[in-house]
Amino acid sequence: MSFHAKIHTIQKRADSLLCVGLDTDAQKLPVHLRSKKNGILEFNKRIIEVTRDLVCAYKINFAFYEALGKEGWAIMEKTLALIPSAVFTIADAKRGDIGNTSSQYARAILNEMGFDSITVAPYMGKDSVQPFLEQKEKGVFLLALTSNQGALDFQYKKIGKKRVFEEVVTTAQQWTTNHNLGFVVGATKSKDIQSVRKLAPDVPFLVPGIGAQGGSVEDVVKYGCTDGGFGVIINASRSILYASIEKDFADTARSEALKLNNEINFFRTKYF
Amino acid sequence: MSFHAKIHTIQKRADSLLCVGLDTDAQKLPVHLRSKKNGILEFNKRIIEVTRDLVCAYKINFAFYEALGKEGWAIMEKTLALIPSAVFTIADAKRGDIGNTSSQYARAILNEMGFDSITVAPYMGKDSVQPFLEQKEKGVFLLALTSNQGALDFQYKKIGKKRVFEEVVTTAQQWTTNHNLGFVVGATKSKDIQSVRKLAPDVPFLVPGIGAQGGSVEDVVKYGCTDGGFGVIINASRSILYASIEKDFADTARSEALKLNNEINFFRTKYF
Repeated sequence: MSFHAKIHTIQKRADSLLCVGLDTDAQKLPVHLRSKKNGILEFNKRIIEVTRDLVCAYKINFAFYEALGKEGWAIMEKTLALIPSAVFTIADAKRGDIGNTSSQYARAILNEMGFDSITVAPYMGKDSVQPFLEQKEKGVFLLALTSNQGALDFQYKKIGKKRVFEEVVTTAQQWTTNHNLGFVVGATKSKDIQSVRKLAPDVPFLVPGIGAQGGSVEDVVKYGCTDGGFGVIINASRSILYASIEKDFADTARSEALKLNNEINFFRTKYF
Repeated sequence: MSFHAKIHTIQKRADSLLCVGLDTDAQKLPVHLRSKKNGILEFNKRIIEVTRDLVCAYKINFAFYEALGKEGWAIMEKTLALIPSAVFTIADAKRGDIGNTSSQYARAILNEMGFDSITVAPYMGKDSVQPFLEQKEKGVFLLALTSNQGALDFQYKKIGKKRVFEEVVTTAQQWTTNHNLGFVVGATKSKDIQSVRKLAPDVPFLVPGIGAQGGSVEDVVKYGCTDGGFGVIINASRSILYASIEKDFADTARSEALKLNNEINFFRTKYF
């Protein structure tokens, strides 16, 4: 099954576009887990247990684990093993290097660790992205329009009549015929989700920027979803993970995830 | 001492602009080290021992270590500990994420691991780079003009009268007053090294693309160096590391490093 088809199948079966971002920060753990040796892994385990029936995907943010050195790497591998195989996995690593080096990352992250997909930066062009596109059941979410303020620095600059992010979206779609390229499109840039959707009608989007960053769920669904209300993976991290730092953290995280999923599905029904 | 001053001091004392890239690939190790448990670390140790008096810097390419999972992370930490403190260290990790996440990478790589500098991708703009610029003795090599073929896909596109890489160089210099920003400028784009130098007269360049990738040493020195023949860090990886896969690999690596260093210094004398 191709990467695009896999995402669609999982979203349909789960009736969910929600992705929980495991951006687990040792300093923000529930108080009773902070001093525990396996605190982070235990936290991730509980979060996965209480959200697994509500999500289509989990996204693991490499920075938070690399901050812990080799221990962090082990926690990441163990966390990945806890994710049910029916849920899609995203390595939020924002890699991208010369071909020789990207091949190393592709092998490590998509094959040895076994992630379904990875986020990649576009600046170095085609040969920096292609090693991640070689296996048709694995794929890339290429940064197009990011959710942060700095998106304005280069992504909105004009190359001829197109903005840089539009140039990226147009060009990158020619890099694979494997149906395994998607784009990162920030929820904070709501109207421009529509601009990207026009240029890439059938491609899945990974949409960060809901929750702590303040993007609108309604706009993401309305402007981003494809026919039938699919095709966007909506990520929330901090607003779910750290909804409570008390012993009830897992129940509270589940409530937040459920609330967000219901909100997403409300707008899917409204617009599709 | 600021980051810029530190590079200058080290280059002057070592009389060298050479950086050896520790892109150590388990599959390309000398035959007798391939099956050894600590083969990669032993290889790095020997390479450092025989080149440490010839270089101003070592660059560690994270991909090659991450390909080995948590073991790789440990090897990277141990390799770093073998590098003399008088030599400059570069984490070739090409990171860059929203501020919250970049802060995690900055802490992990510049503080906990203790690298002097890191390569960062510019696509996400100012707030994705700033966390790496907060300490004035640590700094960033921001991707400007990369050495690969894919550089043509976006970096050479025009934003008004400037090319994208020129826009990056001009804009990014406004992001810090700490004298701790440098640029990655590929040796394979010789004439355009000069274009970047014009826009950034006092800023250090990290120049990959010599050796296996075929860039010209003469052009790098001629177009890239600042007054007195400083200001570029010229990296070679594969051409030195894998010059021999026999037991004499270390001697051969030293010969290659020496030859390259002499060539660089020949052109420094010629042009400065």
